Amino acid sequence: METAMPETAEAPYEPTDRTIPTRSRERASYDRELVHSILDTAYVCHLGFVRDGAPVVLPTLYARVGERLYVHGSTGSRPLRMAGEADPGLPVCLTVTHVDGLVLARSAFHHSLNYRSVVVHGTARQVTDPSEKRTALDALVEHAVPGRSTDSRPANTKELAATAVLRLDLAEVSAKTRTGGPNDDPADLDLPYWAGVVPVTTTRGLPDPSPDLSPSTPLPAYL
Amino acid sequence: METAMPETAEAPYEPTDRTIPTRSRERASYDRELVHSILDTAYVCHLGFVRDGAPVVLPTLYARVGERLYVHGSTGSRPLRMAGEADPGLPVCLTVTHVDGLVLARSAFHHSLNYRSVVVHGTARQVTDPSEKRTALDALVEHAVPGRSTDSRPANTKELAATAVLRLDLAEVSAKTRTGGPNDDPADLDLPYWAGVVPVTTTRGLPDPSPDLSPSTPLPAYL
Repeated sequence: METAMPETAEAPYEPTDRTIPTRSRERASYDRELVHSILDTAYVCHLGFVRDGAPVVLPTLYARVGERLYVHGSTGSRPLRMAGEADPGLPVCLTVTHVDGLVLARSAFHHSLNYRSVVVHGTARQVTDPSEKRTALDALVEHAVPGRSTDSRPANTKELAATAVLRLDLAEVSAKTRTGGPNDDPADLDLPYWAGVVPVTTTRGLPDPSPDLSPSTPLPAYL
Repeated sequence: METAMPETAEAPYEPTDRTIPTRSRERASYDRELVHSILDTAYVCHLGFVRDGAPVVLPTLYARVGERLYVHGSTGSRPLRMAGEADPGLPVCLTVTHVDGLVLARSAFHHSLNYRSVVVHGTARQVTDPSEKRTALDALVEHAVPGRSTDSRPANTKELAATAVLRLDLAEVSAKTRTGGPNDDPADLDLPYWAGVVPVTTTRGLPDPSPDLSPSTPLPAYL
């Protein structure tokens, strides 16, 4: 895969570390397994597109099916309409980020984040084939809650028609990660400030049943 | 504030619900306190800009100071160079999203997310005033870890010079939230599928000291 976020050109976090030899900790990667693992453990991306020359970034649900990503939205929404089959497609940038830790260094300068991110550049196209659309919608549900797509009422024809789905191939992709502890200057090591990592995790809490749920409906095993 | 994400034009999640009367649950908001609260409880945004006509979305640390946001990056990074004082500034879209819950409906169609998001459109400009730059950098540290900016070594002149900071006014801003349970069609209420909300929370774990930290350095109270 090509790099979409060259290390020398852009830096989401702690860019100043690039000037010192810590490349092994913070780097761009083109490893397919890493890209898939980052994409498969999130379900909200930030989708960027250009509208009237200006950038727009919206949070959006997505799912991966093989080497394709699917995002969905209203048939009336701007990016969906712009990506209609009659058009050449919509140039997008789809970014997924996990925050894994706050990195506290002795110096303010070397504070950083541990994170994993994937950036996908490409042209999004509207999915019109009903079979592919259904596969994509199942994947969107399954991606967020594995096991759920076969344990809910599938979309009917009217619902399918009311939902638009965009497809984006995983062609121009890069992953970027930072792990490990702070990277203080040697001269700062004896300063009296705490240094280390505060882990950040995202967790799911106890499922809260809908008030109108029949008490005889059990909590599914996948929850 | 103006709306940057009109309800009828874009929908990050569950857009199909727009066709039925659930506006009270999912809506755009221009309330300043809500915008501030969403911005102040995150520290990573997704910053979009246009490069050679194509969208780019990068995860970036940010902080709010009054009605301004600051983001930082390498002085060599593309968005920072593009936003240099010699230019007219860089049109950006800065988006912050909290995921609060997975909403499971009886129908696949009505699955949704509870979330809070803020979208800021505007022109980012590079901060050149040393005093404002220092204020911004302190805010960036303090935003992620309150109490930390006064408990670490401040940036020196060389470090300040190596760090670029962008400023973005909170002028064209919208907030959007969804709360509450699933919104099933009445005909689906008796289906045998579990329905409700799975809360999603982001938490900080036990601080992990750097291996080279002196054992005599106590864990600060703010951690």
